[in-house]
Amino acid sequence: MAISELSRAAAAALLGCAAAACSVWVETPGDAPATSEDSDGEAPGPLDLAAYDLVDLSHTFSDETVYWPTDTAGFSLEELAFGETEGGYFYSAYSLATAEHGGTHIDAPIHFLEGGPDVASIPLRRLVGPAVVIDITAQAAETADYRLTVADVEAHEAKHGPIETGSLVLLRTGWSARWPDALSYLGDDTPGDASQLHFPSYGEAAARLLVEERGAAALGADVASIDYGASTDFIVHRIVAAANAPGLENLTNLDLLPARGATVIALPMKISGGSGGPLRAIALVPPSN
Amino acid sequence: MAISELSRAAAAALLGCAAAACSVWVETPGDAPATSEDSDGEAPGPLDLAAYDLVDLSHTFSDETVYWPTDTAGFSLEELAFGETEGGYFYSAYSLATAEHGGTHIDAPIHFLEGGPDVASIPLRRLVGPAVVIDITAQAAETADYRLTVADVEAHEAKHGPIETGSLVLLRTGWSARWPDALSYLGDDTPGDASQLHFPSYGEAAARLLVEERGAAALGADVASIDYGASTDFIVHRIVAAANAPGLENLTNLDLLPARGATVIALPMKISGGSGGPLRAIALVPPSN
Repeated sequence: MAISELSRAAAAALLGCAAAACSVWVETPGDAPATSEDSDGEAPGPLDLAAYDLVDLSHTFSDETVYWPTDTAGFSLEELAFGETEGGYFYSAYSLATAEHGGTHIDAPIHFLEGGPDVASIPLRRLVGPAVVIDITAQAAETADYRLTVADVEAHEAKHGPIETGSLVLLRTGWSARWPDALSYLGDDTPGDASQLHFPSYGEAAARLLVEERGAAALGADVASIDYGASTDFIVHRIVAAANAPGLENLTNLDLLPARGATVIALPMKISGGSGGPLRAIALVPPSN
Repeated sequence: MAISELSRAAAAALLGCAAAACSVWVETPGDAPATSEDSDGEAPGPLDLAAYDLVDLSHTFSDETVYWPTDTAGFSLEELAFGETEGGYFYSAYSLATAEHGGTHIDAPIHFLEGGPDVASIPLRRLVGPAVVIDITAQAAETADYRLTVADVEAHEAKHGPIETGSLVLLRTGWSARWPDALSYLGDDTPGDASQLHFPSYGEAAARLLVEERGAAALGADVASIDYGASTDFIVHRIVAAANAPGLENLTNLDLLPARGATVIALPMKISGGSGGPLRAIALVPPSN
């Protein structure tokens, strides 16, 4: 299962990990990061997904959607039309308003990296790829301030194999079961005050290992942030943005994924100039036997 | 390549084609529509997508995004923060507002079907599946009011094989090349007036054939509507909604897809109660040889 240092370095360069200014990504197979051993040379045909479970990793947007405490406006859906028209048929339509960084959403690098790629420029190869699910539900149950450690990552790899370049790493804390109760999900629900939050997430050294060494395409989590709730320096956001990687926040249903073997498809609203935005993420899970 | 009438009927029932009130969809392989011959019994493993091209089928949202003439507010992105923070790091964030049915977006059945599924309830099996691309660029170049006919569908099937249950049918008119010039894309750009529009799309009989007979999971197009511009009764919308199928509108890059063989993944913003919403759609295209 070893990936050569050469291919890893090449893939890392293509993913823009080595240069914060790099945002070019050619989405053809020749430029794709190596995610598996060489095939037997037979060109793959159409995908047959009928045998795969489809798992929705997204919460719905509604009045109950959890936002960062400083985003006090929340989610708004306004009726434009609802009912029978003059033509005799039913018609309904709405308009919506939301902050980019509420509910299940993505952080583009420019959220924390001046001059970094906006959400419309995130390469699709960072949004589609193999899922690696790291489970820290036991540690997080002990302390809500838990942060993923390098030892946690190494223990995961010892059990499930090395994390391949181009993987989308998803941190499972169990916190999605608390959604949409903002008090238990964020640790505090005082409007406008984000200084008293408590929930688990990534730690600094583990984040560096994942994006800088392993070449993770993206980091996601079933909590409100890829930094833990008590963070004041948002160091994980800054590390991940500097690697040109997106963050996927407020995910759910990670308990339905295996540690390895699922494929994540995380498609954000394509907002020109956006620092992030609403995200619909799903997983394709192979049958377990 | 023939699909048995039994499996077609079963899949159609599961897709809710037969009963407008049906919105249940269990997203496990046992309930999936048959999209290919039986395999050799070997369970599929993790997907290896490295060899597939990833094609973005979505336009960006910006000040230039084309909206229906009656949606005069367009797309709005408001800066919440941009620049260096007190902590010494860069931070940017925005909020956004949009009508559901502008730019690359989805129509949920409830857009035209009273009591139909909202956008959050569309089964994932209607959003992920094999792409069938029907090319009417030649006909549309002759007349902007062109509507796909039953003969067009039959000619496509004669050349490329039968359209399988669960396919996402994408109509390629060539109109996406006119984006974002609203006048040439819609045929008229008078604010507030949708009575003078001209662009091609599906015809009534072809739409019935596709969703009622073939069991298409969804109908999409590279124009602003699954009804042609001059429509006043929106009959295709009503037929498609009655079959519980979504519509995918304002797609792009359909010229990069083969007539058969690509896989579409069309993930809308998951809005509780929404009649539609912003859509990010991509295609996975196998290598051509």
